Amino acid sequence: MYSIDLNSDIGESFGAYKLGDDEAILQQITAANVACGWHAGDPMVMDKVVRMASERGVVVGAHPGYPDLMGFGRRKMVLSFQEVKNYVKYQIGALSAFTQSYGMKLHHVAPHGAMGNQCQYDEEISRAICEAVYEVDKDLIIYYCAGAVLGKIAEDMGLRTAAEIFADRAYMDDLSLVPRKMEGSMITDEDVAISRCVRMIKEGKVTSINGKDIDIKGDTLCVHGDGPKAIAFARRIRETFEKEGIEIKPM
Amino acid sequence: MYSIDLNSDIGESFGAYKLGDDEAILQQITAANVACGWHAGDPMVMDKVVRMASERGVVVGAHPGYPDLMGFGRRKMVLSFQEVKNYVKYQIGALSAFTQSYGMKLHHVAPHGAMGNQCQYDEEISRAICEAVYEVDKDLIIYYCAGAVLGKIAEDMGLRTAAEIFADRAYMDDLSLVPRKMEGSMITDEDVAISRCVRMIKEGKVTSINGKDIDIKGDTLCVHGDGPKAIAFARRIRETFEKEGIEIKPM
Amino acid sequence: MYSIDLNSDIGESFGAYKLGDDEAILQQITAANVACGWHAGDPMVMDKVVRMASERGVVVGAHPGYPDLMGFGRRKMVLSFQEVKNYVKYQIGALSAFTQSYGMKLHHVAPHGAMGNQCQYDEEISRAICEAVYEVDKDLIIYYCAGAVLGKIAEDMGLRTAAEIFADRAYMDDLSLVPRKMEGSMITDEDVAISRCVRMIKEGKVTSINGKDIDIKGDTLCVHGDGPKAIAFARRIRETFEKEGIEIKPM
Amino acid sequence: MYSIDLNSDIGESFGAYKLGDDEAILQQITAANVACGWHAGDPMVMDKVVRMASERGVVVGAHPGYPDLMGFGRRKMVLSFQEVKNYVKYQIGALSAFTQSYGMKLHHVAPHGAMGNQCQYDEEISRAICEAVYEVDKDLIIYYCAGAVLGKIAEDMGLRTAAEIFADRAYMDDLSLVPRKMEGSMITDEDVAISRCVRMIKEGKVTSINGKDIDIKGDTLCVHGDGPKAIAFARRIRETFEKEGIEIKPM
Repeated sequence: MYSIDLNSDIGESFGAYKLGDDEAILQQITAANVACGWHAGDPMVMDKVVRMASERGVVVGAHPGYPDLMGFGRRKMVLSFQEVKNYVKYQIGALSAFTQSYGMKLHHVAPHGAMGNQCQYDEEISRAICEAVYEVDKDLIIYYCAGAVLGKIAEDMGLRTAAEIFADRAYMDDLSLVPRKMEGSMITDEDVAISRCVRMIKEGKVTSINGKDIDIKGDTLCVHGDGPKAIAFARRIRETFEKEGIEIKPM
Repeated sequence: MYSIDLNSDIGESFGAYKLGDDEAILQQITAANVACGWHAGDPMVMDKVVRMASERGVVVGAHPGYPDLMGFGRRKMVLSFQEVKNYVKYQIGALSAFTQSYGMKLHHVAPHGAMGNQCQYDEEISRAICEAVYEVDKDLIIYYCAGAVLGKIAEDMGLRTAAEIFADRAYMDDLSLVPRKMEGSMITDEDVAISRCVRMIKEGKVTSINGKDIDIKGDTLCVHGDGPKAIAFARRIRETFEKEGIEIKPM
Repeated sequence: MYSIDLNSDIGESFGAYKLGDDEAILQQITAANVACGWHAGDPMVMDKVVRMASERGVVVGAHPGYPDLMGFGRRKMVLSFQEVKNYVKYQIGALSAFTQSYGMKLHHVAPHGAMGNQCQYDEEISRAICEAVYEVDKDLIIYYCAGAVLGKIAEDMGLRTAAEIFADRAYMDDLSLVPRKMEGSMITDEDVAISRCVRMIKEGKVTSINGKDIDIKGDTLCVHGDGPKAIAFARRIRETFEKEGIEIKPM
Repeated sequence: MYSIDLNSDIGESFGAYKLGDDEAILQQITAANVACGWHAGDPMVMDKVVRMASERGVVVGAHPGYPDLMGFGRRKMVLSFQEVKNYVKYQIGALSAFTQSYGMKLHHVAPHGAMGNQCQYDEEISRAICEAVYEVDKDLIIYYCAGAVLGKIAEDMGLRTAAEIFADRAYMDDLSLVPRKMEGSMITDEDVAISRCVRMIKEGKVTSINGKDIDIKGDTLCVHGDGPKAIAFARRIRETFEKEGIEIKPM
């Protein structure tokens, strides 16, 4: 029996600014990565999305980012090991207050944006994130992009992990995502995207942008929540998985 | 046997900016109110002061404030009930990540600056703070200025409380602090200040600025950590209390 | 011959967050109130909207607000006279860099949100804003809500002013806006709203919420840019004004 | 006749946080680089230091930095060309409001911290800064570290420049500063430091850390204002320069 977790980044609104349709995407997913007020999100937003997730039975994880609201956490910042570690701790703790309020336990940590991208190859940043998790709560699961060094470091430290795969992104031979600027980085044909997902889950294989078949392990699939098209696509994925005998459930 | 807790606001540095001598004041106190990154403090500072407190056996409480770093949380902001409640939750959670990291449990919550001042009379803000605490962790003790409505609301909600008294501040007849701009607001004579403390603790009485003897209950005494004079004064208070048979210990 | 300026608040996006359709509303107005990065806006947004305004021949004014991005500058903050004055100077200056870059001169200052609302009755805040303008650039026009004390203080100081009127808001007898929470605060019937505008401009009269005819002077009409409905309404206003012989032009 | 400008970074306090002794250092310098509220400084601080500078006849320049108050602008951020350009414009404009208020004209621009360091070799960032200056006010002088690519790019664009030299820092063969972590990066012997300054100004030569004599051009000397020792050293520099016939005056 195959199974997969469906995750999405939510809670990215801020004050008067709305981003994404959190309510709609929460109907489709099993795990929510909630922004913690640094690159996006604020306590009002966090409270609302954690409450909605608790009502839907969706598990909640922290989605920590760099202290760069103006850049939405997508701009690389050169921080020290201790800075990354303490910034991640802070954000995990902040979100935990809301999961506790709704009788939930924080479930996982999935680094956002530039911080997340750096976890592909950067061992120091990966280790800083893992140490933060280890010291605050060893039960938290580390969500990492399949192939990223973050996964290996987390496992070496004895932490639980979930490898994240993407329906709409092409892969390089080393499992890193094809940069968005490159031709062919996005899988725009929805049927192709869904077939790739099914194959990644059932066969553990994906065809890289160079045409090579590469091994990939996927525990959780990233689903987008920005716009009606994204929500509809998420619904199609669910339907296909059900037909294909892939159970949709959290880690 | 009389006893008193000695508390101080610490962790108020931010980035390159240093404020107060946290290391020195931690030698004198039994409870630390740690800034949570909104009006002051940052994750590096929080990590450092929580570690130092854990090494000294000083209990750690959250010192949440308004989102106003530029005004050090001292400027009144007109926020909604839900905003105050969620802002306090966020800050409690953020600090908890650091106490958990050092094997401590967060001990109390003491609102800062303008938020704290409003707790003298404002029932809505007081209730918002208490509900935040109640929903996140019912064991947290609410520190309130002796006489403030915050104490009554916390007790009505079944929360544990600690009434805070001040050595260096004069009181109005209703136990509110004499505003700093008013003549006689500060008790500048150290001997007088210390005698007043001893009387508040042993007799439960203080002389108001109008010369009336009023009842006051003090569980915790506020001690300042800004500058060598403040540290020396804290040391004098400790010495006097020991001579007077007042035990210094956390709640 | 009657004439009116049409103004709108624009440039309120921030980083990844989009708010309002600046491009569409710039087709309808003669004066833009541009957010300056405190309650909304950022340098990228400011650059873009000032460039677009310069291309359209729309004059640009500063729309300064409180340092409260999380509250969109809509929450009252208790600031000192000097703080308001210097905060307004800072924001005027910041925007001026962009108008200078596009060969324009900054045209006016229109306080935003809570700061703007306080200018109805608060002489100290009004004076702080006017002194800021007076010291930085005496040629800047102060935009104030018709009836607000800000207008009187600006004129006493020798500054040029423009009284702002609203199509969609009901008035109290003293010309203050009916608070949004009150029944009847919004003029929801578009025909009524437009007739009221025409009467305010041609007759200098408006019917208050209490049914009284009160005097009102309108130099500039506030137009909204949030959503297709708002843009369509702005277009209707323009068409009606043209038919009514009301010339649409900046101050 | 030799001459030199003495500059210092000032206005780096923020809210309740004090940094440096602006009043004392303003007695020693001819040009102030004033923080603009992004990495340090706030409008109250800017107002105060610009007023003090105007009273002392010290020229005022902008000291723009990255949007990173928590890191004091010392942490590298990967920003786009347009972001750097618009961020610099914004900060120049903001400070200009204060110089205008005191009847002064903004004099120069000296990039701060990580942004400044990147101007040693990074042509794109240098060009972004120069374009910002060019578009806002062509008369502003670009202060650059002697040897940095920023100087060359500014001159190619027709902007006026001032090469900055350091009394207390060692140089590499290419005129870049020896990184602080390296042995020998700081010139700790005050007599040596002052002799090196005199030689740089009179002979246009400095001995690099590798013992080579290299050409250096110095228009302005950086002086520190943090602590009584720094102020005393600045005073010694002034005295020596007077004896050596080096006139101290702004560009």
